[in-house]
Amino acid sequence: MKVGVLGIGITKFGERWDQGLRELLLDAQLRALNDAKIDAKQIDTLFTGNMCGDSLSGQLHIGAMAAENLNLDKPSIRVEGACASGSLALRQGVHAITSGEARVAMVSGVEKMTDVSTEQVTTALMGAGDEELEGFNGLTFPGLYALLANAYMHKYKLKRETLAKVSVKSHFHGARNPYAQYQNEITVDTVINSPMVADPLTLFDCSPITDGAASVILVSEEIAKKAGVEVYITGSGLANDSLSLARRKSLTRIDASFVAREKAFNQAGITPKEVDFAEVHDCFSIAEILAVEGLGLAKEGEAGKLYDSKQTYFDGDMPINTSGGLKACGHPIGATGVKQAVEAVQQLRGEAKERQVKGAGIGVTHNVGGSGATVCVHVFKKVK
Amino acid sequence: MKVGVLGIGITKFGERWDQGLRELLLDAQLRALNDAKIDAKQIDTLFTGNMCGDSLSGQLHIGAMAAENLNLDKPSIRVEGACASGSLALRQGVHAITSGEARVAMVSGVEKMTDVSTEQVTTALMGAGDEELEGFNGLTFPGLYALLANAYMHKYKLKRETLAKVSVKSHFHGARNPYAQYQNEITVDTVINSPMVADPLTLFDCSPITDGAASVILVSEEIAKKAGVEVYITGSGLANDSLSLARRKSLTRIDASFVAREKAFNQAGITPKEVDFAEVHDCFSIAEILAVEGLGLAKEGEAGKLYDSKQTYFDGDMPINTSGGLKACGHPIGATGVKQAVEAVQQLRGEAKERQVKGAGIGVTHNVGGSGATVCVHVFKKVK
Repeated sequence: MKVGVLGIGITKFGERWDQGLRELLLDAQLRALNDAKIDAKQIDTLFTGNMCGDSLSGQLHIGAMAAENLNLDKPSIRVEGACASGSLALRQGVHAITSGEARVAMVSGVEKMTDVSTEQVTTALMGAGDEELEGFNGLTFPGLYALLANAYMHKYKLKRETLAKVSVKSHFHGARNPYAQYQNEITVDTVINSPMVADPLTLFDCSPITDGAASVILVSEEIAKKAGVEVYITGSGLANDSLSLARRKSLTRIDASFVAREKAFNQAGITPKEVDFAEVHDCFSIAEILAVEGLGLAKEGEAGKLYDSKQTYFDGDMPINTSGGLKACGHPIGATGVKQAVEAVQQLRGEAKERQVKGAGIGVTHNVGGSGATVCVHVFKKVK
Repeated sequence: MKVGVLGIGITKFGERWDQGLRELLLDAQLRALNDAKIDAKQIDTLFTGNMCGDSLSGQLHIGAMAAENLNLDKPSIRVEGACASGSLALRQGVHAITSGEARVAMVSGVEKMTDVSTEQVTTALMGAGDEELEGFNGLTFPGLYALLANAYMHKYKLKRETLAKVSVKSHFHGARNPYAQYQNEITVDTVINSPMVADPLTLFDCSPITDGAASVILVSEEIAKKAGVEVYITGSGLANDSLSLARRKSLTRIDASFVAREKAFNQAGITPKEVDFAEVHDCFSIAEILAVEGLGLAKEGEAGKLYDSKQTYFDGDMPINTSGGLKACGHPIGATGVKQAVEAVQQLRGEAKERQVKGAGIGVTHNVGGSGATVCVHVFKKVK
């Protein structure tokens, strides 16, 4: 499979009180069009990822909004898979191209989260879990991931300091990404001494509440070749598991990550050893550890070593989340999966400046919905 | 394009206080599997339409739920396009088959609406319109469609009695559909003398609040032929327009219906004259009039004649909404587009009993999101 990425666009992530849901989306869309150097009329179909437009903005039907923003009557669909909504939109865009249904597809993701209270956001996000088994009984997402963290730390003797290094690395990268919500570096002490959210996770183990949008324009191989496109998507894998943690086989691994990775890597014809960098789902620090293992970039129980040895920095052997990840770049839910694609393309194009992974040829994105009920993996390849 | 429909399943529509969101979905899924005579493990991918799970049930991530219900880790995605969510899921399922991504796809739709107050439902449904231009200023969906009704009635001199006949016909059909929410016949007087909701629309011009789910199993032509499948989907058209009425070119036609119909009919290679029956989006009586014209089944301004002459009854020349439509069968939002598919298949298989359209060979489904911002049309054909 080869689907070209003709253009990318991203808004500044953060508390964007200057722009509403529609404006954020439009901003990313226009930037992607500008980067692709095409007119909106050339778009055949649109897919948009969004999770909480209903409960946070009173706005559903964001597929229609995405088309209206560009004055198009073309097919336009919103897809939702909790925090994996953006990568599900990407996957649908990829399939629209590979099926021949479309020659040019716009894939966007958007979330407007800071217009309401933190309590409203926490409640809305719990829609990603199992409402009857978990939400109704008072569980929140920090609570769910704290359960995973405790199980993992107990089984594999992961040190608190090592877990904290995930966030330290993310802020180091965020400080080198102009689109990031937090562009300041932090230390292990910052993480460990920040307020407790859900034991063992403190404030700096948790991704923030963010407004933002991102957009990419996908094209057929034929168009991509003519336009001299350098970056292609060569694999897409999606897997699902139970909404609730209670029904999982294990609490120390995300099974769906392993399944989705295998599908995507097989399609792309690569092995984990060939991956030059990865953008993974670090809604909480423990999630990144689990993601790295799910992608096969470390053995189960051993991802921590990559953090102790600083190999996950942009100039290390296995760069992870050079965008700053969800932790420092921010986590506007529906946009996150598309932002990962934007970062992968920037890296492969060699446009990542201060955080550039040298000689990057293959990048992977990994996006999780809920506590692991949905995992979507994409493989990006630079074609010379 | 030829995509076989191997199985169909539908729950009783109505106030289903005996089943929650998950159980309704599971019920429809199991019925479809039973009808298709296959094991869940044969499903390659799932798409599920749902609109208001977030605000009405606190449950998002329904793609994962659909897979979990059948103990599958296969790709499973929720799509949303307001009241057109079900047909968007159907369209994605169709494309999954035509692209070769899947050989067997399960498409479901579900909505649980009666656990909360009518006010909460009215607010949630307004997410289908433009929140900033319409919802924020107090408009509701009955209000939006009342604006369309007034514009149409003024321009084309449509009589109130004729408009009422839309609902009378729907209840006549609902009384012959065991899955319908309302299985009682009504008269023009019932409609006209029922409480005013939004002038000129009274209670019986409006579709009800409904719980329900529906599911269909789509298969490749190869599998369909082996299984002796009789009914195929041969066309899929989707078009979008502005979320708000204020930005439309006309208030007396739904432009997106015309565009979506042209795409679907061209793909299927049919003309409106070849359509034997249609399941159209009658969230309000006026919506059905606009739908019939959008599908080219009557000239603009003339759909009323079909109702005065009773041609829209199951034994007439142009049967419309033999399921009872949204009005009498009920309107569990995300399920509606899939229910239309179930009805089309039942008619083409000759299983519609008391409401059977004789000799039906081609049926069309027409599903609208919002006040016309999304329209999705599918063509179903009986292959002997």
